[in-house]
Amino acid sequence: MASQTEIQKYVRFETGGRTAYGRWKDGVIEELEGSIYEGAAPTGATFRLEDVHLLVPCEPSKVIAVGLNYASHQQFVTSAEGGFTAPGGKPLDMSKPVIFAKFPTSLIPDGADIVFPDGATNVHFEGELALVIGKKASRVGEAEARDYVFGVSICNDLVDREWLLNDLQWFRAKGSDNFGPMGPAIVTGLDYSDLRLRTWVNGDLRQDSSTSELVYSPDKLLSYVSQFVTLMPGDVIFTGTPGQTQAVTQGDTIEIEIEGVGRLCNSIAA
Amino acid sequence: MASQTEIQKYVRFETGGRTAYGRWKDGVIEELEGSIYEGAAPTGATFRLEDVHLLVPCEPSKVIAVGLNYASHQQFVTSAEGGFTAPGGKPLDMSKPVIFAKFPTSLIPDGADIVFPDGATNVHFEGELALVIGKKASRVGEAEARDYVFGVSICNDLVDREWLLNDLQWFRAKGSDNFGPMGPAIVTGLDYSDLRLRTWVNGDLRQDSSTSELVYSPDKLLSYVSQFVTLMPGDVIFTGTPGQTQAVTQGDTIEIEIEGVGRLCNSIAA
Repeated sequence: MASQTEIQKYVRFETGGRTAYGRWKDGVIEELEGSIYEGAAPTGATFRLEDVHLLVPCEPSKVIAVGLNYASHQQFVTSAEGGFTAPGGKPLDMSKPVIFAKFPTSLIPDGADIVFPDGATNVHFEGELALVIGKKASRVGEAEARDYVFGVSICNDLVDREWLLNDLQWFRAKGSDNFGPMGPAIVTGLDYSDLRLRTWVNGDLRQDSSTSELVYSPDKLLSYVSQFVTLMPGDVIFTGTPGQTQAVTQGDTIEIEIEGVGRLCNSIAA
Repeated sequence: MASQTEIQKYVRFETGGRTAYGRWKDGVIEELEGSIYEGAAPTGATFRLEDVHLLVPCEPSKVIAVGLNYASHQQFVTSAEGGFTAPGGKPLDMSKPVIFAKFPTSLIPDGADIVFPDGATNVHFEGELALVIGKKASRVGEAEARDYVFGVSICNDLVDREWLLNDLQWFRAKGSDNFGPMGPAIVTGLDYSDLRLRTWVNGDLRQDSSTSELVYSPDKLLSYVSQFVTLMPGDVIFTGTPGQTQAVTQGDTIEIEIEGVGRLCNSIAA
């Protein structure tokens, strides 16, 4: 019962032309005031879920992502594409996580249509666990990392794989507008070390794994990133995708579910 | 005279525990209120430059940078390091700009010491022109690009070249904390198509070029980036560095001057 009561779902929403953060319970959203990272308090106003428009649940100053972080996905990339070469021409050193940047402008909320950038020809879905940072983190050790995590969410780390293989850096391959559906909520108080993660495209199951299979755990990732780049409250780390991914196209619907976190659903715009 | 009167220098500063934007003229800073991108107005307060602490002159939601954007620097990289390989193993396609991400947390102001991340062994300076975006820019054409530029500044696109050659993506090679000195001011109303750019290390001239030598002009870069990623007011594009760069180490002082824009000076922390 103790751990049950600590689990909370935080959302950000728009209603009547204004935006607010809220706590979501039993289909009702309690509006909050103040920073959710510093103990926001209820305003007293409540809304029914169907009367608000959910937004991306945080406002990051950085969106950082991780590649090749499940053995099953490494095997897929190696067999399908031959794996990656480092910029200097050597084989890739896999003793460190492959970290890259997406952008705050990449993010779209649950339910929003995914609009591809012009020229994208081979866009794959990638269902992932997202970490949301709760306090400023610089040079944090792995053992302390969990103290810096506010909560977790669900994300779709969309990627154009032609650009991924042929552009030196993944600016547009990974960072394009709409390439980061995220939400619907941030869930706090959850042990995120072994959560089942599944992705469906048009109702067909395409990914089925667990965060226990991550090569670099969320805590290891937070610690590694923070050795170089200071993380701020609301910043996001996309932790990597398992297994095989496939191209999606106009009208396809992608649903990603993480046990205890919820379900993220977005369709590709016509 | 007309163009003279349009040239303004904008700064951001801290004094007495608060931060503000200001307009800098003849050693005096006029404090402003409201967004500098939407016509900020003087508050009436003025400060002497020596009585304030200058900050990074903008607060970007994104810091985007460009590699290999002077022929002279491409030649240096090719001769010194053999050039770059695309992630899929092919030679690099140079028909598009090489775009990558730094982070808001990479930026430090004029005068601040540069603290290296642990493990950095081969950090090079890179003197560059920085563009500061003035209004939201999505899918902007090259001919309209200048309308979306608020002004220009000076930046140092510091890089660890071991990480650059060996990490698949340049997260820590380019994005580490302190790897983006920028300032002291944003200069508006300046024609940035042919400005002399020089860099000195400990007083020795190391770079001497002009923005007229950029392979992709600032307007081309803004247009290209905006095809994929929406730029927001205050966002920054580091436009690339000319010629040869060299390793810098503890106690070295790097000065970068751009004609009509000013001089950026930072030392490597002990």
